[in-house]
Amino acid sequence: MERSTIIVAGGSGRRMGGPIPKQFMLVKGKPLLCWTIEAFHAFDTAMPIIVVLPEAQIPIWKALCIGHGFLVEHDVVSGGEERFHSTCNGLAVVKGDGIVAVHDGVRPLVSKELIARCFAAAEEHGAAIPVVPITSSVRLVEGDSSRAIDRTGMRAVQTPQCFRVTLLRAAFEAPYDPAFTDEATLVERQGRRIHLVDGEETNIKVTTPIDLQVAEVILSATDRSGRSFTGPSQTV
Amino acid sequence: MERSTIIVAGGSGRRMGGPIPKQFMLVKGKPLLCWTIEAFHAFDTAMPIIVVLPEAQIPIWKALCIGHGFLVEHDVVSGGEERFHSTCNGLAVVKGDGIVAVHDGVRPLVSKELIARCFAAAEEHGAAIPVVPITSSVRLVEGDSSRAIDRTGMRAVQTPQCFRVTLLRAAFEAPYDPAFTDEATLVERQGRRIHLVDGEETNIKVTTPIDLQVAEVILSATDRSGRSFTGPSQTV
Repeated sequence: MERSTIIVAGGSGRRMGGPIPKQFMLVKGKPLLCWTIEAFHAFDTAMPIIVVLPEAQIPIWKALCIGHGFLVEHDVVSGGEERFHSTCNGLAVVKGDGIVAVHDGVRPLVSKELIARCFAAAEEHGAAIPVVPITSSVRLVEGDSSRAIDRTGMRAVQTPQCFRVTLLRAAFEAPYDPAFTDEATLVERQGRRIHLVDGEETNIKVTTPIDLQVAEVILSATDRSGRSFTGPSQTV
Repeated sequence: MERSTIIVAGGSGRRMGGPIPKQFMLVKGKPLLCWTIEAFHAFDTAMPIIVVLPEAQIPIWKALCIGHGFLVEHDVVSGGEERFHSTCNGLAVVKGDGIVAVHDGVRPLVSKELIARCFAAAEEHGAAIPVVPITSSVRLVEGDSSRAIDRTGMRAVQTPQCFRVTLLRAAFEAPYDPAFTDEATLVERQGRRIHLVDGEETNIKVTTPIDLQVAEVILSATDRSGRSFTGPSQTV
């Protein structure tokens, strides 16, 4: 089945506290976004990759690609006001009616294996997303009080979120709802069931300066071609 | 008000995949548990610190302390079958009726400031715990299906969990319930309200080999005496 990937990199980098958008921060000497694009290119070198960026950042990104000799082919599309609009703009240029992945630009550590699992599950089920268990105790704040809630069934959602293109297009025909959190929620509102795939603890969203350093640690510890540890501790 | 701290280090280190319990793994050349103890000692050098360890690990810990020249004074108590029993054994040797903190042995990155906030809040409110927002989308698995749930009010619970000693003792008089997840839940069952304090993203629980490396990164980036960044990125 035909595949494509939309990488949404709309963040202004406010939480990073610097003027450089987080998707352009350097990880091991290379912009974060390059790592993310390379992960998908490594999975399928023929797959079209669409990168959605705020309009104002597109010239900077193009300059960064030249400066870093980044040659992986990809389309660049200008983003919208919110994530919803950015994904929508990316979806508009997806060709064919195969499977499309939507991925956070600041999740550079996703493995080839996870990408493969998500695409395969979406081919079978129509909609598939990676999730990981929530490992801390969880409380729910209600007014000025709070109570412990059972975390057993809870899962934290990651990306890539993969869908049949026709399904995602239909979901995005709904009007914009400020409660939008991810593509899966939107597809679910169309009455479609979302298939859950095992995510990866290391598939973190890079949002703070410490995360950047953590990303370097994980990239050094993992072999992007095989995801195995190079150090003496083989089991995670 | 009198203060004491129970550090519970009962883990066998299964998730680490090695024979060395995770609390003994080296971070910057020093066992993880030393860093944890030092954090509480730095907050209040006069405060009694009680470390709860599985019986079989006590001689190893004592040898490690000698080998690493670790001189921070602390009591060692043997743990029980579950976290519940371990905390209970630690609580049995706490003196006085001030405030007691219960902390995970594998959270070595807790700052002096967070410890201070938790103790102060417990003095005022009787029971206080640190929490952080949940930043990913959350789904709830129900049978073989799942649905998106609102994460807005959800908080992930950390330690130190601080309580008036009398309150915690009363809570631990209840019979052991396998559903026990943390001390706060137990105290809450006595009808006591738990006060929530802002936790720290960096106050992670070290459970995987990558976490160990992350801990090194955070320890290098933060000044344990002041918690500020030494690098160029000052804002988190």
